[in-house]
Amino acid sequence: MATLFKDVLILDGAREKAERGHILVSKGRIDSILSAEQTPPAADKIISGHGRMAVIPGFVNAHTHAAMTLVRGLGEEAPLMEWLQEKVWPVEAKLTADHIYWGTLSAMLEMLAGGTTCFADMYFEMERVAEAAFGAGMRAALCRGITADPKDPGKVERSLQDNLELAERWHGREGLITVQLGPHALYTVPMDDMRKITAAAKEHGLGVHFHFLETEWELSYLRSELKTSPEAYLKDTGLLEAPYAVLAHAVWLDPKLAEGVPLSNVTLAHNPCSNLKLGSGVMPLNDWLEKDVPVALGTDGASSNNRLDMWEEMRTAALLHKGVNKDPLRVSALEALRMATYEGARAFGFTQKGMIREGWMADLVLVDLGTPHYIGVSGDNLATYIVYAGSSADVRGTMVNGKWLYYNGDYPTLDREEIVQRAREAREEITR
Amino acid sequence: MATLFKDVLILDGAREKAERGHILVSKGRIDSILSAEQTPPAADKIISGHGRMAVIPGFVNAHTHAAMTLVRGLGEEAPLMEWLQEKVWPVEAKLTADHIYWGTLSAMLEMLAGGTTCFADMYFEMERVAEAAFGAGMRAALCRGITADPKDPGKVERSLQDNLELAERWHGREGLITVQLGPHALYTVPMDDMRKITAAAKEHGLGVHFHFLETEWELSYLRSELKTSPEAYLKDTGLLEAPYAVLAHAVWLDPKLAEGVPLSNVTLAHNPCSNLKLGSGVMPLNDWLEKDVPVALGTDGASSNNRLDMWEEMRTAALLHKGVNKDPLRVSALEALRMATYEGARAFGFTQKGMIREGWMADLVLVDLGTPHYIGVSGDNLATYIVYAGSSADVRGTMVNGKWLYYNGDYPTLDREEIVQRAREAREEITR
Repeated sequence: MATLFKDVLILDGAREKAERGHILVSKGRIDSILSAEQTPPAADKIISGHGRMAVIPGFVNAHTHAAMTLVRGLGEEAPLMEWLQEKVWPVEAKLTADHIYWGTLSAMLEMLAGGTTCFADMYFEMERVAEAAFGAGMRAALCRGITADPKDPGKVERSLQDNLELAERWHGREGLITVQLGPHALYTVPMDDMRKITAAAKEHGLGVHFHFLETEWELSYLRSELKTSPEAYLKDTGLLEAPYAVLAHAVWLDPKLAEGVPLSNVTLAHNPCSNLKLGSGVMPLNDWLEKDVPVALGTDGASSNNRLDMWEEMRTAALLHKGVNKDPLRVSALEALRMATYEGARAFGFTQKGMIREGWMADLVLVDLGTPHYIGVSGDNLATYIVYAGSSADVRGTMVNGKWLYYNGDYPTLDREEIVQRAREAREEITR
Repeated sequence: MATLFKDVLILDGAREKAERGHILVSKGRIDSILSAEQTPPAADKIISGHGRMAVIPGFVNAHTHAAMTLVRGLGEEAPLMEWLQEKVWPVEAKLTADHIYWGTLSAMLEMLAGGTTCFADMYFEMERVAEAAFGAGMRAALCRGITADPKDPGKVERSLQDNLELAERWHGREGLITVQLGPHALYTVPMDDMRKITAAAKEHGLGVHFHFLETEWELSYLRSELKTSPEAYLKDTGLLEAPYAVLAHAVWLDPKLAEGVPLSNVTLAHNPCSNLKLGSGVMPLNDWLEKDVPVALGTDGASSNNRLDMWEEMRTAALLHKGVNKDPLRVSALEALRMATYEGARAFGFTQKGMIREGWMADLVLVDLGTPHYIGVSGDNLATYIVYAGSSADVRGTMVNGKWLYYNGDYPTLDREEIVQRAREAREEITR
């Protein structure tokens, strides 16, 4: 089954300018990219763009808790810890494996409709999350959120085993799933346990996905309760020796740290909308980019955003840092696009994904340029139109491994109506 | 012709919670609002919401330059003055009255599809902008942007006459159009001319729409070139004596000023996305709200945003001030909604518009709550779902004065295809 994108603008995610041409997708891969002058090859299915469609790389949501779609809107407009402790955690405690399955599928409906082809998820009952993603053919980077409980001394060990079993069953499966270890945060996992987890990551060749310094409170907790520094914490816990580590948020991590600490295994996952909404602050993004520390973009869970929309994160990342630093030259459209695509894929161990290149996997988004807000678009300026003027509503199709998972409002591999119905029932059950 | 919204969630724009009920629209007005228990009255047309549709007040875009859709994407990622002087102004100089007509209509397509029922526009060839809005039945607050030119001493006087003639012909027409006087900015209009304009506003009973302290450079220009202070400028130019004054941006206006200066005729038009994109900074919104100075929301022109989407402004206003002030309790969903609706209508002299109340004009937006991101929505939390999780893609219909101007992708009073085609041609002509 070969699909031809004929006469489309191709924004490959690496170069500033887009080219008009054709893309042939075959056996899940980008078989060939041809210029507009070349004769397009034959294919089973032809998408004719007439120069009014664009193809861009699929978005990678580098930090989320997908099934939190079920707790969206609970306890709005409260401080982070109060919101978590009083509103979210008590309801989350009622979630069953089935709830999480349907909540994840509901999140996938949203993400696919907005061009997201891969999501990095930290939650629990992850076996069911893997089933949901793999079953639909969506790419996912999964970890079991590991937290300690003073009343249950064996909890970290059990959760780690759970996470390792997840890796055993799913890591690398058909190139769709990677598994990380998922220590939740420095205030929910004691340092000794962190060391065990990073040692297991090293032993099993797995990456680590970790919330790090999301809030100012977390930084003061690290200093006053753990009596350490961010530098020493990263070194002492072994995080810097894991095959790779994705540090979500890092709002309160000082980029000067990069001068003294080797961060070669680290990617930061920037969640600008969530950090704004929870009042956590604004990450010093440009300082990290200047130090060549890679940064990916994520939505965080739907209850602290409240969208699962990578167009919003990309646009917010591109606008926010210009505004708060009073410098319109910060975070170019191409940088924002790259953070929203390639950097996320690479960060979670996916190779040959996140850009449009011959031989790479066909994780592609078809964008309609026929709407009024694209008047004036061309190959030269497509990246800026996508980032500043575009929105998830422009997505006509989302393809993973060369298969349409979303096309013109339909989900070929998912039963939208059943998912919405089951997710509604789950929401009712947990809030009853 | 009466329209009944049957079994919808009604978010009236004044109260935090929405009620489930029915709205009868007749003769352009909200005839009656009934509770869900009451029997819905007969009507010519019935929109059945089945509890999965919401009706909210129409958005008022309190500051834009609609026809700048034609210059969108030109000279991205440059400082404000360089962008204006080198990229925008030379191309704008080529704009004809016809271009502006089609560029405005193209902007209206975007705005209506996103639930905007009224826009406040400052540009030139405003006769054609009035024709475009009035012809389609859209509400608009219009002013002619007045700028001086040292090489053309009569320019301000001619532009002022032009603006006054616009008012004579259009102000108050069928309740759809109000006209303001539009001095552009303190750096493009000398203070003597400002005094003449505000005197004319007073004489003719017209409001003033003015860019004020958008950038730090403007504040230093005011101090070093005009040798005055913001306080003295507002008093000396007569702006505070105009029937009303809408000050766009005001990023660099210190809210302490409200303590010594009577601002009872002033509304600030906050344009968060534009201010971020151009690196202008972040307006101290909460300080103004605490001082009870009213604030409306606008998109600014499409070339500095680059969207004409009030959902984005509402969401950005609600998120941004939480984040930069590290306080998740700032700018509630209801405050953001009210700034995006009622405050804009009131600011530009429209009465009985911007909220859902019996007897008020039927400027309404029909929102589809059937999509996955509304799972869990109820009357109690609808405002937070709309502001944090919603987007312009959720709009199913946009009604002004009881008439659908947008419904399910169609524009009953506009020829979408011709507008897009003509706007494309205009773009090509000015960038040739």
